[in-house]
Amino acid sequence: MKTKAYAVQNETAPLAPWTFDRRDVGPHDVQFDILFCGVCHSDLHQIKNDWFPGIFPMVPGHEIVGRVVKVGDHVKKFKVGDLAGTGCMVDSCQVCENCKRDLEQYCLEGSTQTYNSYERNGKTPTYGGYSNTIVVREEFVLHISDKLDLAATAPLLCAGITTYSPLKHWKVGKGHKLAVVGLGGLGHMGVKFGVAFGAEVTVLSTSPKKEADAKALGAHHFVVTSDPAQIKAARATFDYILDTVSAPHDMNMYLSLLKTDGVHICVGAPPEPAQVSAFSLLAGRKSLAGSGIGGIKETQEMLDFCAANNIVSDIEIIDIKDIHTAYDRMVKGDVQYRFVIDMATL
Amino acid sequence: MKTKAYAVQNETAPLAPWTFDRRDVGPHDVQFDILFCGVCHSDLHQIKNDWFPGIFPMVPGHEIVGRVVKVGDHVKKFKVGDLAGTGCMVDSCQVCENCKRDLEQYCLEGSTQTYNSYERNGKTPTYGGYSNTIVVREEFVLHISDKLDLAATAPLLCAGITTYSPLKHWKVGKGHKLAVVGLGGLGHMGVKFGVAFGAEVTVLSTSPKKEADAKALGAHHFVVTSDPAQIKAARATFDYILDTVSAPHDMNMYLSLLKTDGVHICVGAPPEPAQVSAFSLLAGRKSLAGSGIGGIKETQEMLDFCAANNIVSDIEIIDIKDIHTAYDRMVKGDVQYRFVIDMATL
Repeated sequence: MKTKAYAVQNETAPLAPWTFDRRDVGPHDVQFDILFCGVCHSDLHQIKNDWFPGIFPMVPGHEIVGRVVKVGDHVKKFKVGDLAGTGCMVDSCQVCENCKRDLEQYCLEGSTQTYNSYERNGKTPTYGGYSNTIVVREEFVLHISDKLDLAATAPLLCAGITTYSPLKHWKVGKGHKLAVVGLGGLGHMGVKFGVAFGAEVTVLSTSPKKEADAKALGAHHFVVTSDPAQIKAARATFDYILDTVSAPHDMNMYLSLLKTDGVHICVGAPPEPAQVSAFSLLAGRKSLAGSGIGGIKETQEMLDFCAANNIVSDIEIIDIKDIHTAYDRMVKGDVQYRFVIDMATL
Repeated sequence: MKTKAYAVQNETAPLAPWTFDRRDVGPHDVQFDILFCGVCHSDLHQIKNDWFPGIFPMVPGHEIVGRVVKVGDHVKKFKVGDLAGTGCMVDSCQVCENCKRDLEQYCLEGSTQTYNSYERNGKTPTYGGYSNTIVVREEFVLHISDKLDLAATAPLLCAGITTYSPLKHWKVGKGHKLAVVGLGGLGHMGVKFGVAFGAEVTVLSTSPKKEADAKALGAHHFVVTSDPAQIKAARATFDYILDTVSAPHDMNMYLSLLKTDGVHICVGAPPEPAQVSAFSLLAGRKSLAGSGIGGIKETQEMLDFCAANNIVSDIEIIDIKDIHTAYDRMVKGDVQYRFVIDMATL
């Protein structure tokens, strides 16, 4: 079906209106009209080929919420009129060891990303949420509560699950000291979840200006990482560090802030490799770990947790025509904390 | 008391005979005459200032076994004539959180190393096992079984505990696929312990020539890391990698060999930082971890385990006058698998 979108035609082109065909709704598919789509830093990384050569034309967007307009004959969990959402994945092999463990994000065949990826046939490009409607197989569609502000729910599909999942996996909660690095789209959700799980949360930031914002989000403490005295005082004090930064940063400094057996969890992806001294890990049996989004079952659990605990993202709603201004501001960190596109403006 | 030793006077000097005074036996001290001392790669790193500026003159050696010749009035666990051993540590604060958890190696005040370190007074240098006798406080002296070959027991005090401790900490055993990188002093002990704990053990090596040796040690499989076809076949197959290499190596390649949730454990310390891509960790929720030797309680447990299971190091006994030849051969990897100095040759 004809679908309106914003796309880039290549890695140097601007985002601009484009029309393409989505597949018709198959027996196991859900079609929903997109009401809001969050703007993730990875949208910008991907349209600029920062990580790897992209598939063009590219329609970004993987924090997608809307309302179901059509369901396939075999669809059981959704009906027309339901709220629905989709995050970073729209498919996976569904039969490998990881898919069977509800870890589709680590599908051994490779999961199908919502955009800049190919369907399971290896040929049909996927197009994301900067568009007016989307067709996704039922298993990869999430139920969205009508108790929460819908626009502010969109970023939960990526920024939310990306921070929720590692905190759950490493069982971060009461009695733990958690540091969150980077107070952006992911970081502000990391603070909210850390606080909700009962951890003592510290925001680590290069900018002293963010202290009030961090505290307003619920953080208990704030450390300015550019202040050597504050860093010295923070040495060996954290059980976990949730690192949401996708720009280069000094990993050994952060590792020095962990207690013995502490874990530094990366959820951001700097394009350059981190320089990690073996001594930073040996001295205190520390771990540098990574975590990518979360499985579908856990994403639904996260959305349900948010509905039960009234957690959403802090957002700024934009018109799609202002996407380039939004990107510029996002790069400067000038957003509290996520831009969300009102797709009615498409 | 007068002590005979081999020492280096500075980082460019050769090891040569030297005489110094050890402290008299205090009420909580054990003195034992050194019968054998293992030669660790870190001895060479330290006398050459590879890691940090050393304390000179320096008497290396931290894989020390011998027989007790004197005990202090308050010593309860040792008597004259007992076999005794000491590893990398001779003291710690004994009151911090980590010391109380039997993790003296991670003492928050810093443990006192057996050589190239200062006593708790911060002034008196410590001198290691390339000497004829040593005085150590009782808590840091280990019981050595008379059931094992004594010379071959010496390397257990460093190479043994350094590989035993992380395998125990991460609960590596039955049902796990363990890869061991580097078939040297540490690596060959990693293979022996991995096999003893019931893991399926693969040795990863750049050199196809080591296959027979790896299998002789008990390894079930062997992968030549310089062969792209073998590396491709090994991708995503290991639960744990025990990395004993202290030369630079491609960490992202090794991380690609781990399954989802796999852990790469570094026990070697390359002088240069590893280059770690965030994607290597994110894609599969992997961890890069480090582990340093082991606590005293666990070291005794390891020695007892070795006595019960007839595990020792494979060694080549040398005269102390041949130490430089031994170092040269060690650097080339030409030793199966540890040199041990017969201290009667001093």
